[in-house]
Amino acid sequence: MQKKVVILSGGMDSTTLLYDIVAEFGKQNVIALSFDYGQKHVHELSKADATCSKLGVENNIFDLAVLNQIAPSALTRKDWKVPEGHYADENMKQTVVPNRNMVLLSLAASFAMAVKADKLYYGAHAGDHDIYPDCRKEFVDAMKHAIKLADWNEVELLAPYWDIDKSGILKRGIKLGVDYSLTHTCYDPNPKGESCGRCGSCTERLEAFFVNSSTDPLSYYEVGN
Amino acid sequence: MQKKVVILSGGMDSTTLLYDIVAEFGKQNVIALSFDYGQKHVHELSKADATCSKLGVENNIFDLAVLNQIAPSALTRKDWKVPEGHYADENMKQTVVPNRNMVLLSLAASFAMAVKADKLYYGAHAGDHDIYPDCRKEFVDAMKHAIKLADWNEVELLAPYWDIDKSGILKRGIKLGVDYSLTHTCYDPNPKGESCGRCGSCTERLEAFFVNSSTDPLSYYEVGN
Repeated sequence: MQKKVVILSGGMDSTTLLYDIVAEFGKQNVIALSFDYGQKHVHELSKADATCSKLGVENNIFDLAVLNQIAPSALTRKDWKVPEGHYADENMKQTVVPNRNMVLLSLAASFAMAVKADKLYYGAHAGDHDIYPDCRKEFVDAMKHAIKLADWNEVELLAPYWDIDKSGILKRGIKLGVDYSLTHTCYDPNPKGESCGRCGSCTERLEAFFVNSSTDPLSYYEVGN
Repeated sequence: MQKKVVILSGGMDSTTLLYDIVAEFGKQNVIALSFDYGQKHVHELSKADATCSKLGVENNIFDLAVLNQIAPSALTRKDWKVPEGHYADENMKQTVVPNRNMVLLSLAASFAMAVKADKLYYGAHAGDHDIYPDCRKEFVDAMKHAIKLADWNEVELLAPYWDIDKSGILKRGIKLGVDYSLTHTCYDPNPKGESCGRCGSCTERLEAFFVNSSTDPLSYYEVGN
Protein backbone atom coordinates (compact mmCIF):
# COMPACT_ATOMS: atom_id res chain seq x y z
CA MET A 1 0.00 0.00 0.00
CA GLN A 2 1.24 3.51 -0.78
CA LYS A 3 1.93 5.66 2.25
CA LYS A 4 -0.47 8.25 3.63
CA VAL A 5 1.05 11.48 4.97
CA VAL A 6 -0.76 13.43 7.69
CA ILE A 7 0.19 17.02 8.54
CA LEU A 8 0.20 17.04 12.33
CA SER A 9 0.32 20.34 14.19
CA GLY A 10 -0.27 18.78 17.58
CA GLY A 11 -3.62 20.59 17.86
CA MET A 12 -6.98 18.87 18.33
CA ASP A 13 -7.99 18.73 14.68
CA SER A 14 -4.89 17.20 13.15
CA THR A 15 -4.41 14.84 16.10
CA THR A 16 -7.95 13.53 15.66
CA LEU A 17 -7.30 13.21 11.95
CA LEU A 18 -4.16 11.15 12.58
CA TYR A 19 -6.15 8.71 14.75
CA ASP A 20 -8.75 8.54 11.97
CA ILE A 21 -6.23 7.76 9.21
CA VAL A 22 -4.38 5.23 11.37
CA ALA A 23 -7.72 3.51 12.06
CA GLU A 24 -8.42 3.38 8.32
CA PHE A 25 -5.02 2.35 6.91
CA GLY A 26 -2.96 0.95 9.81
CA LYS A 27 -0.08 2.67 11.59
CA GLN A 28 2.57 1.12 9.34
CA ASN A 29 1.15 2.94 6.33
CA VAL A 30 0.94 6.39 7.91
CA ILE A 31 3.67 9.03 8.28
CA ALA A 32 3.14 12.22 10.27
CA LEU A 33 4.77 15.50 9.34
CA SER A 34 5.14 18.52 11.63
CA PHE A 35 6.67 21.93 11.11
CA ASP A 36 8.66 24.05 13.52
CA TYR A 37 8.28 27.57 12.17
CA GLY A 38 9.21 29.34 15.38
CA GLN A 39 5.66 29.39 16.67
CA LYS A 40 5.26 30.46 20.29
CA HIS A 41 2.99 27.48 20.79
CA VAL A 42 5.94 25.15 20.15
CA HIS A 43 4.44 22.93 22.86
CA GLU A 44 2.31 21.63 19.99
CA LEU A 45 5.37 19.89 18.59
CA SER A 46 6.20 17.91 21.71
CA LYS A 47 2.55 16.92 21.91
CA ALA A 48 2.67 15.84 18.25
CA ASP A 49 5.67 13.66 19.05
CA ALA A 50 3.99 12.17 22.10
CA THR A 51 0.89 11.27 20.06
CA CYS A 52 3.02 9.60 17.39
CA SER A 53 4.90 7.60 20.03
CA LYS A 54 1.62 6.51 21.54
CA LEU A 55 0.22 5.43 18.15
CA GLY A 56 3.51 3.95 16.91
CA VAL A 57 3.57 6.27 13.89
CA GLU A 58 6.73 7.70 12.34
CA ASN A 59 6.96 11.46 12.86
CA ASN A 60 9.09 14.01 11.02
CA ILE A 61 9.61 17.53 12.28
CA PHE A 62 10.98 20.01 9.76
CA ASP A 63 12.54 23.33 10.60
CA LEU A 64 10.73 26.13 8.83
CA ALA A 65 12.41 29.13 10.44
CA VAL A 66 12.47 30.69 6.97
CA LEU A 67 8.74 31.44 7.25
CA ASN A 68 9.40 33.75 10.17
CA GLN A 69 12.31 35.28 8.32
CA ILE A 70 10.08 36.06 5.34
CA ALA A 71 6.93 37.15 7.08
CA PRO A 72 6.88 37.66 10.84
CA SER A 73 3.56 37.76 12.70
CA ALA A 74 2.21 37.87 16.24
CA LEU A 75 2.28 34.06 16.32
CA THR A 76 6.01 33.89 15.84
CA ARG A 77 7.51 37.14 17.13
CA LYS A 78 8.20 37.15 20.88
CA ASP A 79 7.85 40.95 20.98
CA TRP A 80 4.32 40.99 19.52
CA LYS A 81 1.49 40.40 21.94
CA VAL A 82 -1.07 37.76 21.00
CA PRO A 83 -4.53 39.37 20.93
CA GLU A 84 -7.27 37.99 23.18
CA GLY A 85 -10.87 37.19 22.23
CA HIS A 86 -12.55 35.56 19.27
CA TYR A 87 -10.90 35.09 15.91
CA ALA A 88 -13.52 37.25 14.25
CA ASP A 89 -12.11 40.34 15.94
CA GLU A 90 -10.13 42.69 13.75
CA ASN A 91 -7.02 42.50 15.95
CA MET A 92 -6.75 38.75 15.44
CA LYS A 93 -5.53 39.54 11.92
CA GLN A 94 -2.15 40.11 13.54
CA THR A 95 -1.95 36.35 13.96
CA VAL A 96 -1.88 35.81 10.19
CA VAL A 97 1.38 34.62 8.65
CA PRO A 98 0.71 35.49 5.00
CA ASN A 99 0.36 32.41 2.84
CA ARG A 100 1.36 30.08 5.64
CA ASN A 101 -0.97 27.32 4.52
CA MET A 102 0.35 27.28 0.97
CA VAL A 103 3.92 27.03 2.24
CA LEU A 104 3.11 24.20 4.63
CA LEU A 105 1.04 22.34 2.03
CA SER A 106 3.76 22.75 -0.60
CA LEU A 107 6.46 21.35 1.64
CA ALA A 108 4.21 18.55 2.83
CA ALA A 109 3.43 17.70 -0.80
CA SER A 110 7.15 17.67 -1.56
CA PHE A 111 7.68 15.23 1.29
CA ALA A 112 4.72 13.09 0.18
CA MET A 113 6.18 12.89 -3.34
CA ALA A 114 9.62 11.99 -1.96
CA VAL A 115 8.22 9.06 0.04
CA LYS A 116 5.93 8.02 -2.87
CA ALA A 117 2.77 8.57 -0.87
CA ASP A 118 -0.54 8.78 -2.73
CA LYS A 119 -2.50 10.80 -0.19
CA LEU A 120 -1.77 13.87 1.88
CA TYR A 121 -4.17 14.72 4.69
CA TYR A 122 -4.66 17.85 6.67
CA GLY A 123 -7.08 19.00 9.30
CA ALA A 124 -8.78 22.05 7.78
CA HIS A 125 -12.33 22.23 9.03
CA ALA A 126 -15.56 24.19 8.81
CA GLY A 127 -14.61 26.31 11.82
CA ASP A 128 -11.58 27.79 10.07
CA HIS A 129 -12.09 31.44 9.79
CA ASP A 130 -12.74 33.98 7.13
CA ILE A 131 -9.88 36.16 8.37
CA TYR A 132 -7.56 33.50 6.97
CA PRO A 133 -8.06 33.76 3.20
CA ASP A 134 -6.00 30.62 2.73
CA CYS A 135 -8.55 28.62 4.71
CA ARG A 136 -11.27 29.22 2.11
CA LYS A 137 -12.75 26.36 0.12
CA GLU A 138 -11.66 27.91 -3.20
CA PHE A 139 -8.09 28.11 -1.96
CA VAL A 140 -8.03 24.48 -0.81
CA ASP A 141 -9.48 23.38 -4.15
CA ALA A 142 -6.83 25.38 -6.00
CA MET A 143 -4.07 23.76 -3.94
CA LYS A 144 -5.56 20.31 -4.45
CA HIS A 145 -5.42 20.92 -8.19
CA ALA A 146 -1.86 22.34 -8.15
CA ILE A 147 -0.51 19.48 -6.00
CA LYS A 148 -2.07 16.89 -8.30
CA LEU A 149 -0.23 18.49 -11.24
CA ALA A 150 3.11 18.95 -9.49
CA ASP A 151 4.42 15.40 -9.87
CA TRP A 152 3.98 12.50 -12.29
CA ASN A 153 3.11 10.35 -9.29
CA GLU A 154 -0.05 12.19 -8.35
CA VAL A 155 -0.54 13.09 -4.72
CA GLU A 156 -4.10 13.74 -3.61
CA LEU A 157 -4.65 16.46 -1.01
CA LEU A 158 -7.52 15.62 1.32
CA ALA A 159 -9.22 17.59 4.08
CA PRO A 160 -11.78 15.08 5.39
CA TYR A 161 -13.02 17.40 8.14
CA TRP A 162 -13.88 20.18 5.74
CA ASP A 163 -17.61 19.97 6.48
CA ILE A 164 -17.51 19.55 10.24
CA ASP A 165 -16.67 22.04 12.95
CA LYS A 166 -14.45 21.69 16.01
CA SER A 167 -17.26 20.25 18.13
CA GLY A 168 -17.94 17.67 15.44
CA ILE A 169 -14.26 16.77 15.30
CA LEU A 170 -14.13 16.36 19.08
CA LYS A 171 -17.23 14.15 18.97
CA ARG A 172 -15.48 11.96 16.42
CA GLY A 173 -12.24 11.99 18.45
CA ILE A 174 -13.99 10.89 21.62
CA LYS A 175 -15.32 7.82 19.74
CA LEU A 176 -11.83 7.13 18.34
CA GLY A 177 -10.35 7.31 21.85
CA VAL A 178 -8.09 10.29 21.11
CA ASP A 179 -5.92 11.25 24.08
CA TYR A 180 -6.56 15.01 24.13
CA SER A 181 -4.10 15.50 26.97
CA LEU A 182 -1.51 15.06 24.18
CA THR A 183 -2.79 18.02 22.19
CA HIS A 184 -2.08 21.72 22.46
CA THR A 185 -4.30 24.57 21.34
CA CYS A 186 -3.38 27.78 23.21
CA TYR A 187 -1.69 30.65 21.36
CA ASP A 188 -0.28 32.06 24.60
CA PRO A 189 0.86 29.24 26.89
CA ASN A 190 2.98 29.84 29.98
CA PRO A 191 6.53 28.43 30.14
CA LYS A 192 5.21 25.14 31.56
CA GLY A 193 3.06 24.73 28.43
CA GLU A 194 -0.19 25.32 30.29
CA SER A 195 -2.98 27.05 28.38
CA CYS A 196 -4.41 30.53 29.01
CA GLY A 197 -8.06 29.67 28.43
CA ARG A 198 -8.67 33.14 27.01
CA CYS A 199 -7.20 33.42 23.52
CA GLY A 200 -9.41 32.74 20.49
CA SER A 201 -8.00 29.28 20.16
CA CYS A 202 -8.61 28.26 23.79
CA THR A 203 -12.10 29.78 23.69
CA GLU A 204 -13.03 27.55 20.77
CA ARG A 205 -11.51 24.47 22.33
CA LEU A 206 -13.38 24.94 25.60
CA GLU A 207 -16.64 25.54 23.71
CA ALA A 208 -16.15 22.27 21.83
CA PHE A 209 -15.69 20.32 25.10
CA PHE A 210 -18.73 22.10 26.58
CA VAL A 211 -20.92 21.22 23.58
CA ASN A 212 -19.82 17.58 23.86
CA SER A 213 -20.54 17.53 27.63
CA SER A 214 -16.96 16.49 28.09
CA THR A 215 -14.05 17.75 30.19
CA ASP A 216 -10.82 19.05 28.71
CA PRO A 217 -7.91 17.10 30.25
CA LEU A 218 -5.51 20.06 29.82
CA SER A 219 -4.26 22.35 32.61
CA TYR A 220 -5.10 26.04 32.39
CA TYR A 221 -3.05 28.68 34.17
CA GLU A 222 -4.65 31.67 35.82
CA VAL A 223 -4.06 34.84 33.85
CA GLY A 224 -2.19 37.38 35.95
CA ASN A 225 -0.20 34.72 37.80
CA MET B 1 3.30 52.27 -6.71
CA GLN B 2 3.01 48.79 -5.20
CA LYS B 3 6.22 46.76 -5.20
CA LYS B 4 7.07 44.12 -7.78
CA VAL B 5 8.89 41.02 -6.53
CA VAL B 6 11.16 39.08 -8.89
CA ILE B 7 12.38 35.57 -8.06
CA LEU B 8 16.04 35.68 -8.98
CA SER B 9 18.03 32.46 -9.22
CA GLY B 10 21.10 34.11 -10.70
CA GLY B 11 20.62 32.16 -13.93
CA MET B 12 20.16 33.74 -17.37
CA ASP B 13 16.37 33.71 -17.44
CA SER B 14 15.60 35.32 -14.11
CA THR B 15 18.46 37.80 -14.47
CA THR B 16 17.10 38.94 -17.83
CA LEU B 17 13.64 39.15 -16.28
CA LEU B 18 14.96 41.37 -13.49
CA TYR B 19 16.42 43.79 -16.02
CA ASP B 20 13.09 43.75 -17.85
CA ILE B 21 11.01 44.55 -14.76
CA VAL B 22 13.45 47.24 -13.60
CA ALA B 23 13.22 48.83 -17.06
CA GLU B 24 9.41 48.82 -16.81
CA PHE B 25 8.83 49.94 -13.19
CA GLY B 26 12.07 51.53 -11.98
CA LYS B 27 14.59 49.99 -9.59
CA GLN B 28 13.02 51.57 -6.49
CA ASN B 29 9.83 49.58 -7.07
CA VAL B 30 11.46 46.20 -7.54
CA ILE B 31 12.63 43.71 -4.91
CA ALA B 32 14.56 40.56 -5.81
CA LEU B 33 14.22 37.33 -3.88
CA SER B 34 16.67 34.41 -3.98
CA PHE B 35 16.70 31.05 -2.25
CA ASP B 36 19.60 29.12 -0.84
CA TYR B 37 18.38 25.54 -0.76
CA GLY B 38 21.79 23.94 -0.56
CA GLN B 39 22.16 23.75 -4.33
CA LYS B 40 25.60 22.79 -5.58
CA HIS B 41 25.40 25.69 -8.02
CA VAL B 42 25.42 28.12 -5.09
CA HIS B 43 27.55 30.36 -7.30
CA GLU B 44 24.18 31.46 -8.69
CA LEU B 45 23.51 33.27 -5.44
CA SER B 46 26.65 35.40 -5.48
CA LYS B 47 25.90 36.25 -9.10
CA ALA B 48 22.35 37.20 -8.12
CA ASP B 49 23.75 39.52 -5.47
CA ALA B 50 26.22 41.06 -7.93
CA THR B 51 23.45 41.74 -10.45
CA CYS B 52 21.30 43.41 -7.78
CA SER B 53 24.23 45.60 -6.68
CA LYS B 54 24.83 46.59 -10.28
CA LEU B 55 21.16 47.47 -10.83
CA GLY B 56 20.70 49.07 -7.38
CA VAL B 57 17.91 46.66 -6.50
CA GLU B 58 17.25 45.30 -3.01
CA ASN B 59 17.98 41.58 -2.77
CA ASN B 60 16.86 39.07 -0.16
CA ILE B 61 18.36 35.62 0.14
CA PHE B 62 16.38 33.14 2.19
CA ASP B 63 17.72 29.92 3.60
CA LEU B 64 15.69 26.97 2.40
CA ALA B 65 17.80 24.11 3.74
CA VAL B 66 14.53 22.42 4.73
CA LEU B 67 13.92 21.52 1.08
CA ASN B 68 17.01 19.35 1.06
CA GLN B 69 15.99 17.88 4.41
CA ILE B 70 12.59 16.90 3.02
CA ALA B 71 13.55 15.73 -0.44
CA PRO B 72 17.20 15.32 -1.38
CA SER B 73 18.18 15.15 -5.07
CA ALA B 74 21.26 15.11 -7.24
CA LEU B 75 21.19 18.92 -7.32
CA THR B 76 21.66 19.24 -3.60
CA ARG B 77 23.37 16.09 -2.37
CA LYS B 78 27.16 16.25 -2.64
CA ASP B 79 27.36 12.47 -2.87
CA TRP B 80 25.09 12.18 -5.91
CA LYS B 81 26.69 12.76 -9.29
CA VAL B 82 25.05 15.25 -11.65
CA PRO B 83 24.20 13.51 -14.92
CA GLU B 84 25.62 14.83 -18.16
CA GLY B 85 23.78 15.44 -21.43
CA HIS B 86 20.44 16.89 -22.42
CA TYR B 87 17.56 17.34 -20.03
CA ALA B 88 15.42 15.02 -22.08
CA ASP B 89 17.51 12.04 -21.02
CA GLU B 90 15.98 9.72 -18.47
CA ASN B 91 18.88 10.07 -16.04
CA MET B 92 18.30 13.83 -15.74
CA LYS B 93 15.25 12.98 -13.65
CA GLN B 94 17.68 12.59 -10.78
CA THR B 95 17.96 16.39 -10.79
CA VAL B 96 14.32 16.78 -9.81
CA VAL B 97 13.59 18.04 -6.30
CA PRO B 98 9.94 17.01 -6.02
CA ASN B 99 7.63 19.98 -5.92
CA ARG B 100 10.48 22.47 -5.74
CA ASN B 101 8.68 25.07 -7.81
CA MET B 102 5.59 25.05 -5.66
CA VAL B 103 7.68 25.50 -2.54
CA LEU B 104 9.66 28.39 -4.02
CA LEU B 105 6.55 30.06 -5.43
CA SER B 106 4.69 29.67 -2.13
CA LEU B 107 7.48 31.28 -0.13
CA ALA B 108 7.93 34.02 -2.70
CA ALA B 109 4.20 34.70 -2.58
CA SER B 110 4.38 34.85 1.21
CA PHE B 111 7.16 37.43 0.93
CA ALA B 112 5.25 39.39 -1.73
CA MET B 113 2.20 39.54 0.55
CA ALA B 114 4.34 40.63 3.50
CA VAL B 115 5.79 43.58 1.55
CA LYS B 116 2.36 44.41 0.03
CA ALA B 117 3.54 43.78 -3.52
CA ASP B 118 0.92 43.36 -6.24
CA LYS B 119 2.97 41.37 -8.71
CA LEU B 120 5.31 38.39 -8.41
CA TYR B 121 7.47 37.54 -11.40
CA TYR B 122 9.40 34.45 -12.25
CA GLY B 123 11.39 33.31 -15.22
CA ALA B 124 9.66 30.12 -16.35
CA HIS B 125 9.99 29.82 -20.12
CA ALA B 126 9.06 27.72 -23.11
CA GLY B 127 12.30 25.76 -22.87
CA ASP B 128 11.43 24.34 -19.46
CA HIS B 129 11.16 20.66 -19.75
CA ASP B 130 8.56 17.99 -19.64
CA ILE B 131 10.55 15.97 -17.16
CA TYR B 132 9.70 18.67 -14.62
CA PRO B 133 5.95 18.26 -14.12
CA ASP B 134 5.87 21.48 -12.12
CA CYS B 135 7.05 23.43 -15.18
CA ARG B 136 3.89 22.61 -17.13
CA LYS B 137 1.47 25.33 -18.16
CA GLU B 138 -1.41 23.74 -16.23
CA PHE B 139 0.70 23.74 -13.09
CA VAL B 140 1.65 27.39 -13.44
CA ASP B 141 -1.99 28.32 -14.05
CA ALA B 142 -3.03 26.37 -10.95
CA MET B 143 -0.42 28.20 -8.85
CA LYS B 144 -1.46 31.55 -10.28
CA HIS B 145 -5.00 30.81 -9.19
CA ALA B 146 -4.02 29.56 -5.72
CA ILE B 147 -1.74 32.56 -5.04
CA LYS B 148 -4.48 34.99 -6.04
CA LEU B 149 -6.79 33.36 -3.49
CA ALA B 150 -4.24 33.12 -0.68
CA ASP B 151 -4.43 36.71 0.56
CA TRP B 152 -7.03 39.49 0.65
CA ASN B 153 -4.43 41.70 -1.01
CA GLU B 154 -4.25 39.79 -4.25
CA VAL B 155 -0.80 38.99 -5.60
CA GLU B 156 -0.59 38.22 -9.31
CA LEU B 157 1.91 35.57 -10.39
CA LEU B 158 3.43 36.37 -13.77
CA ALA B 159 5.76 34.41 -16.04
CA PRO B 160 6.28 36.86 -18.93
CA TYR B 161 8.74 34.57 -20.72
CA TRP B 162 6.33 31.68 -20.84
CA ASP B 163 6.10 31.75 -24.64
CA ILE B 164 9.75 32.30 -25.52
CA ASP B 165 12.70 29.94 -25.29
CA LYS B 166 16.19 30.50 -23.91
CA SER B 167 17.49 31.90 -27.21
CA GLY B 168 14.60 34.35 -27.31
CA ILE B 169 15.32 35.41 -23.73
CA LEU B 170 18.99 35.95 -24.56
CA LYS B 171 18.03 38.01 -27.60
CA ARG B 172 15.88 40.18 -25.35
CA GLY B 173 18.65 40.41 -22.73
CA ILE B 174 21.25 41.52 -25.25
CA LYS B 175 18.96 44.46 -26.15
CA LEU B 176 18.44 45.26 -22.46
CA GLY B 177 22.21 45.27 -21.89
CA VAL B 178 22.21 42.38 -19.44
CA ASP B 179 25.64 41.61 -18.04
CA TYR B 180 25.71 37.83 -18.54
CA SER B 181 29.09 37.54 -16.83
CA LEU B 182 27.01 37.99 -13.66
CA THR B 183 24.91 34.91 -14.30
CA HIS B 184 25.51 31.26 -13.55
CA THR B 185 24.00 28.26 -15.31
CA CYS B 186 26.18 25.17 -14.77
CA TYR B 187 24.94 22.33 -12.58
CA ASP B 188 28.48 21.08 -11.97
CA PRO B 189 30.86 24.04 -11.55
CA ASN B 190 34.40 23.64 -10.23
CA PRO B 191 35.37 25.22 -6.90
CA LYS B 192 36.27 28.50 -8.63
CA GLY B 193 32.70 28.70 -9.97
CA GLU B 194 33.71 28.01 -13.55
CA SER B 195 31.25 26.09 -15.70
CA CYS B 196 31.66 22.57 -17.11
CA GLY B 197 30.16 23.24 -20.55
CA ARG B 198 28.79 19.70 -20.66
CA CYS B 199 25.79 19.38 -18.33
CA GLY B 200 22.29 19.84 -19.74
CA SER B 201 22.15 23.35 -18.43
CA CYS B 202 25.48 24.47 -19.96
CA THR B 203 24.58 22.79 -23.26
CA GLU B 204 21.41 24.87 -23.51
CA ARG B 205 23.17 28.07 -22.55
CA LEU B 206 25.88 27.63 -25.14
CA GLU B 207 23.28 26.81 -27.79
CA ALA B 208 21.44 30.05 -26.99
CA PHE B 209 24.62 32.11 -27.42
CA PHE B 210 25.38 30.26 -30.65
CA VAL B 211 21.90 30.94 -32.06
CA ASN B 212 22.29 34.64 -31.21
CA SER B 213 25.73 34.77 -32.85
CA SER B 214 27.02 35.99 -29.52
CA THR B 215 29.84 34.93 -27.20
CA ASP B 216 29.27 33.74 -23.66
CA PRO B 217 31.40 35.87 -21.29
CA LEU B 218 31.71 33.01 -18.76
CA SER B 219 34.82 30.89 -18.16
CA TYR B 220 34.56 27.16 -18.79
CA TYR B 221 36.89 24.66 -17.19
CA GLU B 222 38.16 21.65 -19.06
CA VAL B 223 36.52 18.47 -17.87
CA GLY B 224 39.09 16.01 -16.55
CA ASN B 225 41.36 18.73 -15.19
